[in-house]
Amino acid sequence: MSRIEEFKKFIKRKKIFQPSPTIYESIAGFYEYGPFGIMIKNKLVNVMRSEFQKYQFWEVEFPLIMPPKVWEASGHLERFVDKITTCQKCNNIYRIDKLIEENYPDLKLLEMSDQGLKKFLEENEIICPKCKTRLTDVGDYNLMIEVGVAGRQAFLRPETATTTYLAFKDYYSLFRNQMPIKIYQFGKAYRNEITARQGLIRTREFEQFEGQIFILKEQEHPFEEFQHVKDIKLPFWSSDAQVHGKEPELYSLEETIDKKILQKEAFAYCFAVAYDLLARIELDLNKLRLRQHLPDERAHYAHDAWDLEVETEQFGWVEICGIHDRGDYDLGRHQKFSKTSLEVKNSKGEKEVPQILEIAFGVGRLMYCLIEQKFTIRDGKNLLLLPKEISPVQCAVFPLMNKDGLGDIAAKINRALVINGIASVLDLKGSIGKRYARMDEIGTPYCFTVDYQSKKDETVTIRDRDDTSQIRVPISDIPSIVRDKFLKSS
Amino acid sequence: MSRIEEFKKFIKRKKIFQPSPTIYESIAGFYEYGPFGIMIKNKLVNVMRSEFQKYQFWEVEFPLIMPPKVWEASGHLERFVDKITTCQKCNNIYRIDKLIEENYPDLKLLEMSDQGLKKFLEENEIICPKCKTRLTDVGDYNLMIEVGVAGRQAFLRPETATTTYLAFKDYYSLFRNQMPIKIYQFGKAYRNEITARQGLIRTREFEQFEGQIFILKEQEHPFEEFQHVKDIKLPFWSSDAQVHGKEPELYSLEETIDKKILQKEAFAYCFAVAYDLLARIELDLNKLRLRQHLPDERAHYAHDAWDLEVETEQFGWVEICGIHDRGDYDLGRHQKFSKTSLEVKNSKGEKEVPQILEIAFGVGRLMYCLIEQKFTIRDGKNLLLLPKEISPVQCAVFPLMNKDGLGDIAAKINRALVINGIASVLDLKGSIGKRYARMDEIGTPYCFTVDYQSKKDETVTIRDRDDTSQIRVPISDIPSIVRDKFLKSS
Repeated sequence: MSRIEEFKKFIKRKKIFQPSPTIYESIAGFYEYGPFGIMIKNKLVNVMRSEFQKYQFWEVEFPLIMPPKVWEASGHLERFVDKITTCQKCNNIYRIDKLIEENYPDLKLLEMSDQGLKKFLEENEIICPKCKTRLTDVGDYNLMIEVGVAGRQAFLRPETATTTYLAFKDYYSLFRNQMPIKIYQFGKAYRNEITARQGLIRTREFEQFEGQIFILKEQEHPFEEFQHVKDIKLPFWSSDAQVHGKEPELYSLEETIDKKILQKEAFAYCFAVAYDLLARIELDLNKLRLRQHLPDERAHYAHDAWDLEVETEQFGWVEICGIHDRGDYDLGRHQKFSKTSLEVKNSKGEKEVPQILEIAFGVGRLMYCLIEQKFTIRDGKNLLLLPKEISPVQCAVFPLMNKDGLGDIAAKINRALVINGIASVLDLKGSIGKRYARMDEIGTPYCFTVDYQSKKDETVTIRDRDDTSQIRVPISDIPSIVRDKFLKSS
Repeated sequence: MSRIEEFKKFIKRKKIFQPSPTIYESIAGFYEYGPFGIMIKNKLVNVMRSEFQKYQFWEVEFPLIMPPKVWEASGHLERFVDKITTCQKCNNIYRIDKLIEENYPDLKLLEMSDQGLKKFLEENEIICPKCKTRLTDVGDYNLMIEVGVAGRQAFLRPETATTTYLAFKDYYSLFRNQMPIKIYQFGKAYRNEITARQGLIRTREFEQFEGQIFILKEQEHPFEEFQHVKDIKLPFWSSDAQVHGKEPELYSLEETIDKKILQKEAFAYCFAVAYDLLARIELDLNKLRLRQHLPDERAHYAHDAWDLEVETEQFGWVEICGIHDRGDYDLGRHQKFSKTSLEVKNSKGEKEVPQILEIAFGVGRLMYCLIEQKFTIRDGKNLLLLPKEISPVQCAVFPLMNKDGLGDIAAKINRALVINGIASVLDLKGSIGKRYARMDEIGTPYCFTVDYQSKKDETVTIRDRDDTSQIRVPISDIPSIVRDKFLKSS
């Protein structure tokens, strides 16, 4: 069986994530995380928080439900729309772009009117994949999910970003009128995808971790903090290179500015924030590319936009992060619609609506890409080589046999670890080989085994997941050994 | 100005939490958390995770949206209903229980039919508080919020608990058929309250942290782990004591079993889990009581139910946690509605549907009670005496003056802390007294000040929030000093 088939079985057997609920008919695109899955996700999010805080971003949290006026101002009510065609016979609904992308890759759908699309469907005799009827209908499908609360219309947010923007003036006063201001928000968002597909990659409920830099025009270039990060190298694939059939090329951030691939140092700095996170979670940087949106592909708010894509075995290239120069679109619109001034003064004393630079991660996608990459088969057995700080369980304690008092010693060691806030499990059953294998499969970095020598000299063996080496250590040192190992890894 | 008035101003000025959004008309009952607020909440939730993990609970996460069948099975579609009366003149809606509770405290509303309620309203000439018209209408109001997803009806979950139950059989296989199984879920839930009130106390979007013990009947009493916790003392206020006009009384958990205030050791153990958390976050245990639900007050699923209540200055007694013996109601219903066996075998080999014991915290309420308690005025200045591990910012670094190179030294110290994952801020402006005051107000435990002596001997002062004492320490020791101080506090 191939690695990827083993991987799929592993996800299922260990309940890392799965469509939810399982005992009733579920709605496509909603997932639950089992005990090991949620621990991986929590630890990943904590690392993300710590990385963004390192770059002096502050966290905020907003409601998932907001009134229509917010989405009118953001442009989502008007433009967050897919063009669809409904089969007049079987009533199946299709996104027109997805339906025809394979056979007509060069078609500029966004530039076509409904009338033009209708004509295209008819002339090219596009048929329903299910019942083979010819498709002729063209309609709009808004991706936002409506809810009724307190007798009022409202929407589940389709992104965290817009909600973060609404309190800009509060950040400005809280941080005593200093610009730029860096803010991130982690949380759920909802899109009523016409077709939910590909596991965690396209879900209707998903989590975003979106960083926003509110910045004055004059601060974007040059940008002081850029000096600390300018030597970071990443594979850039500009729209120009794409159009000319060229491959991505490795450039330092400084080179992207010199070669005018990126226009502003503050925008280039956003790539460093993303890079640092990916390096820390040990994502394979050889399976990464930064793809610039083609001009006709950009969202309605974007001046410049890049997708950070990871090559997966199961789904090909997957976007895990969008880096966007949103200009003053957002605050300009919210100023207009709310009739509240969102302007601040620049160094010349002139009022201006700040620019926004965005680093927008999808958490489920990032988690998926990471565990797909780190899933390994060693000597015919599964091994999840996650970075130690992201492994769901930190260590395990086994008695060689559950008799002669060995089990009690093991239980005592485990209890001391757990009380010290370390995620440790006690496993009493099965051969030692099987117990190591169970821990390797979920990526547990260290296993302690209590044997007959432990009773004589109060030592146990500690086994390392990565090289299976074993050494003896005093029982009394265990909590500090574990703490040191995890401090070093972070 | 009173402490509580200062406290309200502090929450507002520091944007700890506020109705959201602020720049558009908001829907009542939806709150945003500013930078300091979300850091307090995140740290509180991390402490909750760590405490539940100490008691060997595993985390899971489920979607916020589930299909109607789930809520039909759980009983929420049928019973999660408030009786309301609508004013026929001004169209205002009132919960009948809230409308009449003051004047008719002894009325058994739950036992009355719609016809009976209508008669009651008419005979007692109950009037609309707004327009003074006589109220006669009686209707149902379901607290669940409906959403349409993918053309299907669904609901935002009104609690995390039900979603946790749905995967019981998955936990059972994942943990190799061992009972009991302890699981918790942290996440958002939604209730379309008729009237959202009292800030974070009654919101339409809120967060729960609910622990569930799946357990066999034969395991509930005696319960082995009870031995470790039986001496914990808490103020119990049984329904019997309430009926007889008695005050809560302090009993050890062992005494609650001996006196038959609680029937099962496993249920009494749940109170220990809650107690340990509250003790760790240093909630004032003198402002706490455990109030047993009166028989007619219990939810439809509860065999026995207790509210853990905290006395607040602003809102009186507030329920922050419910401890419920849900029996086999939930798994029994889900087995029936899903036609999936949720039975397991007991020690005699007989099949049974497991019992569920629940410890259900409201996170927003717990956070509110904690900060209201810890807000202090010292020498006329605000001071937030949160436990150090919950303070939003861990330390701050100041140069005495932002000149003569002192600012650069401070910036370097701050950067070293931040890179080590410590939440530290650099504050360059204002008198030292003002800067200490700013940090005291948000509860920052330690402040480092760089002065002229720092340039000579590479030391700085470290000031302690709690007693304002200052001592000199070497700059090179700062990261390890901070780490030690926070290790000790946790």
